[in-house]
Amino acid sequence: MSDFTLSDLEAIIATRATSDDEKSYTRKLKAKGIAYCAKKLGEEGVETALAAVVGGRKELVGESADLIYHLMVVLNVAGIPLDEVMAELKSRTVRTGLEEKASRPAD
Amino acid sequence: MSDFTLSDLEAIIATRATSDDEKSYTRKLKAKGIAYCAKKLGEEGVETALAAVVGGRKELVGESADLIYHLMVVLNVAGIPLDEVMAELKSRTVRTGLEEKASRPAD
Amino acid sequence: MSDFTLSDLEAIIATRATSDDEKSYTRKLKAKGIAYCAKKLGEEGVETALAAVVGGRKELVGESADLIYHLMVVLNVAGIPLDEVMAELKSRTVRTGLEEKASRPAD
Amino acid sequence: MSDFTLSDLEAIIATRATSDDEKSYTRKLKAKGIAYCAKKLGEEGVETALAAVVGGRKELVGESADLIYHLMVVLNVAGIPLDEVMAELKSRTVRTGLEEKASRPAD
Repeated sequence: MSDFTLSDLEAIIATRATSDDEKSYTRKLKAKGIAYCAKKLGEEGVETALAAVVGGRKELVGESADLIYHLMVVLNVAGIPLDEVMAELKSRTVRTGLEEKASRPAD
Repeated sequence: MSDFTLSDLEAIIATRATSDDEKSYTRKLKAKGIAYCAKKLGEEGVETALAAVVGGRKELVGESADLIYHLMVVLNVAGIPLDEVMAELKSRTVRTGLEEKASRPAD
Repeated sequence: MSDFTLSDLEAIIATRATSDDEKSYTRKLKAKGIAYCAKKLGEEGVETALAAVVGGRKELVGESADLIYHLMVVLNVAGIPLDEVMAELKSRTVRTGLEEKASRPAD
Repeated sequence: MSDFTLSDLEAIIATRATSDDEKSYTRKLKAKGIAYCAKKLGEEGVETALAAVVGGRKELVGESADLIYHLMVVLNVAGIPLDEVMAELKSRTVRTGLEEKASRPAD
């Protein structure tokens, strides 16, 4: 199992976004502002969708990585911690779980 | 910090995708096939991008959660473990880190 | 050759957008505002792209029609006449034509 | 009123797609195949949607022109005449018109 998590990625992006390394892609992205970062995110969504239907496994893995990276950049620029998104995902998942449970006949 | 991770989400999606609960949205999505799941993913990319520029914080959190969920469904239907995507992200991040290091003047 | 043009579509959309027919889809779209119309446009872009690679001819024709319709609605809501877009397309096409010409060896 | 129509654009794209001018962008696009052209189309959909909500008038006009151009390229590569799409748009518009009429109280 990979030992690299979304939280690790969030931390790396936060560091690079404010680094003084002018070659950092993350720093450049953030400097262009939220509208530019959002455009890149939307485009990666299109590319990942297309890779899922016509690309090979390697391409879909690569596009998925791009999509996650650009989403994390958008969240960084918008000042939203990953935890808020994960809490939302957890809340929906649990709610759905309860609803599914509620829809079952009683034992 | 949220105790809910992408791996948890991956496991929940894997369980629901093969559950016999006909009301499961995940199960329905998977039954419609990869092209349909890819379409939903691409649309969520558009919605997240728009939420980043015109939505409020709550809307962006919600759309980000939707985007991650639909990406995980596409990966499930395509038979790609999250670990492969995280390994790709780690590989790029580390590589970039080395490149950044290489670009610095020697001490 | 079809006798139906983009200008015809523009006129029909303009009429319906301000009609008092509550069942008009165009009227409903416009009432939801530019952000909603833009979202629909972006989603149709994704659907047309996917139809081009995995859909049949009929599906691509249908999605292309949807895409054009939603673009014309966005232009209507934004108050931009089709003529401005066609003039831009003409300008680019002619410019490219000149550039192509300039790049050729003299006779 | 602009004297440049979608049919003009269709004809220009058809000519350039098969031209022997290696600098033609249209020729290059077509040479990369339908999946690449579809990706560009999807991305332009995202950019037009974002321009509609955060761009100025000039940007929306430019992105709309890009979107129409890339849609016409996809149709060219897919071998679908513009007339088929316009006939579909006409058919839907007329059908909707009849439905709207049917929904009105009789005189």
